[in-house]
Amino acid sequence: MKNKILSEMAQKITPYQWAKNVGPEILRFDTNTLPSLPPCVNKFLKDLVNNCPINEYGDPSYIKLKKLISKYEEVPENMITITNSGDEALDIIGKAFLNDGDYFLIQPPTYEIFKSQCEINRGKAIEVPLLKENFKSDIKNVIKVLKNTPIKITFVCNPNNPTGTITKLEEIELILKNTSGIVLVDEAYREFYGVTCVPLLSKYNNLVILRSFSKFGAMAGARVGYLLANKKLSQVFDAIRFPLGVSYFSCKLAEKLLELDQNWIKEQTKMIKNERERLSQLLEKLGFFVYPSQANFILVDFGKKAKEICQKLKENNILVRDRSNKK
Amino acid sequence: MKNKILSEMAQKITPYQWAKNVGPEILRFDTNTLPSLPPCVNKFLKDLVNNCPINEYGDPSYIKLKKLISKYEEVPENMITITNSGDEALDIIGKAFLNDGDYFLIQPPTYEIFKSQCEINRGKAIEVPLLKENFKSDIKNVIKVLKNTPIKITFVCNPNNPTGTITKLEEIELILKNTSGIVLVDEAYREFYGVTCVPLLSKYNNLVILRSFSKFGAMAGARVGYLLANKKLSQVFDAIRFPLGVSYFSCKLAEKLLELDQNWIKEQTKMIKNERERLSQLLEKLGFFVYPSQANFILVDFGKKAKEICQKLKENNILVRDRSNKK
Repeated sequence: MKNKILSEMAQKITPYQWAKNVGPEILRFDTNTLPSLPPCVNKFLKDLVNNCPINEYGDPSYIKLKKLISKYEEVPENMITITNSGDEALDIIGKAFLNDGDYFLIQPPTYEIFKSQCEINRGKAIEVPLLKENFKSDIKNVIKVLKNTPIKITFVCNPNNPTGTITKLEEIELILKNTSGIVLVDEAYREFYGVTCVPLLSKYNNLVILRSFSKFGAMAGARVGYLLANKKLSQVFDAIRFPLGVSYFSCKLAEKLLELDQNWIKEQTKMIKNERERLSQLLEKLGFFVYPSQANFILVDFGKKAKEICQKLKENNILVRDRSNKK
Repeated sequence: MKNKILSEMAQKITPYQWAKNVGPEILRFDTNTLPSLPPCVNKFLKDLVNNCPINEYGDPSYIKLKKLISKYEEVPENMITITNSGDEALDIIGKAFLNDGDYFLIQPPTYEIFKSQCEINRGKAIEVPLLKENFKSDIKNVIKVLKNTPIKITFVCNPNNPTGTITKLEEIELILKNTSGIVLVDEAYREFYGVTCVPLLSKYNNLVILRSFSKFGAMAGARVGYLLANKKLSQVFDAIRFPLGVSYFSCKLAEKLLELDQNWIKEQTKMIKNERERLSQLLEKLGFFVYPSQANFILVDFGKKAKEICQKLKENNILVRDRSNKK
C-alpha cells in the first residue's frame, strides 16, 4: 500500500539520520558556527521580559526586519524575501524554478542541502566537481554543460562549504551570461571573505543570492535567512514562502542584531580572519596542506593521518568534520 | 525570459498580500489566538537569561520535545514529526504524497492553506463543499468522489476553521475506509472540542494527524507543530522535513509548555468553552444565528447586517473576520 500512496520522490528518499546532540564539554569545530553570542542577546531578552506577545502571530510581512536588511545589504526592500534560514530559501528556489525532472547544477564537494532540497522538489542533479588540485570551480566544464544542457539552477557557494575556496566575480558573471536559468549564489559565509555579488543584481535578472544570519550573526539556532533577487522574482518567492516561517523570537533577534551589533560583527569577522590565518600557519608548520580559506573554517589535508587525528581530537573533546572519504 | 525560467507552478501563482500588522490598541478576534500568555513564558525567559546558546545549532532531532509530545499524545516517539508549525507540516504532506497533477480533496469553507500548500506542490484541488445549511461534511458526496477519483489526500479540519463545526469520528472512519490515499485530519483546535482521532492511528495506516501549538498552547508566534502518523510514514516525513525548521527558542518554549502548563491548558480551554457558550447565547438573544462551535471562535450569520457590524466593531477597535462574501 505504502508505495502506491507516496509520491515518486518520497518513494526514493533515504531516511535521514539526524546528528546527535553533544554535551557542553565538547568543543565543536564541525558546524562552522561562531564561538560567542552577539551582545544584542541581552537587550533582546530584556525586551522579551517586558513584552513577549507569543500568543499572537508575528508580523507576516516582516516589515521592520526587511527595512534593516535593506539598509545592511543596500538593496531595496522589494528585492528581499525573508525565510526560515537557508532551508526554506532553498526550498523556495526548488519550487520556483523546477518542474518534474528539470536539471540543476552543483559543484561538489559543496553544501549538501542544495542537492537534497532540489531533489525533494523533483529536480535532477548534474554534478561538475570542483577541480581536484585546488577545489576551485571547473569553470570551463560548467560553461560547457550549461551550453549543452537546459540547466534551471546553477549553484555557487561563495565561499564554498566545506572547502573555504571562492569563485571569482568574473567567473560568476561568466556563468550568469551563459545560462538560460538562474544562478544561486550562497553567500552565507560572505562576511569572512569580504566580497559580494550584490552589485551584480542590477545587471543580471537571473541572479539570486542566498543569505543566512546563522554564521555572520552568530545565531544559527534562530533560523533566519533571506533571498535577494530582482523585484519580479522576489514577488514569486514571497507567494511561495510559508505564510509565517520565522518565529517572533527569531525575527526580533535578527532585528536587534542589525540595529545594535554591526560593529561587533566587524570585530568578530576580523578575529575569525586572524585566527584562520594563525591556525593555518601552525598546521602548515606541522607539514599539512591547508586549502586557502575565505570562510570561518579551514579544510586541511591530513593525508593518511586523517582518521587518527579526528579520533585523537575527539578523545580530547574536540569535534571536527572528517571529509577524508568524500574527497 | 521570466516565464521560461519559472516552474509551471510558479508561473501561475498569485502574488500574496500579507496581512498588515495592527497596533496594540486593537482587540483581535480575527486570528483565533488565545488572549493570554502561558505562564511558562516566565520560566522560559529566565532559563534563556542563564543559557542562550543561539550561536550554535539546536538539536535537529528535537529529542526532548518529541518525548514530551509522545507523553501528551500517548503516541510513540517514532510516530511524531516536528515541524515549523502547520505550514511546514502541510508542505511535507504535499511533497510526500503528490505527484504532478495528483488530486487532493478539500471541503470548503476550510483552512485555506490546505489548498495553497498543495497547489504549490503541484496538486489539483477537488472541492466538496460543506453542506450549506449547517456547514457539516457532505459525507455522501465525499465518499462518492473518493470512489470515482484517485484522491491522494483528503483534508478534514476537525473542528473546522472557519466554521467551528466538527466531523464525527464515524464519518472520518468512513472516509479512511473508502480512500486509497491518506486522510489528513487537522486537529489544531482539538482541545476546544475534546475529541481526537489519535486512537484511530493504530487502526488505519492511511491516517495522518496535524497538530499545532499555536492555539492550545497560546504560542502562535513561535511556529511549532507536528504530524502524527504510522512509523513508516513518519520516517518519510522526517526525511522530507527541513534539517532544522524549528528555532531553539520555539523548541524550548514548546518543551516548557508541556512540562509546566498542562493544567493551565485545561483551565484556559474550560474558560474558552464557557465564553464561547456565553457569547453564543448573547448573540442568539439578539436574533442572530450562531453555528454551533467546538473551536475557540464562533461563526455568526449576521445576514445583511454583516458589513455594517464589521465596520462598527472596527470603529470600536475590535477586529473580526468578515466571511460574508465567502459563503
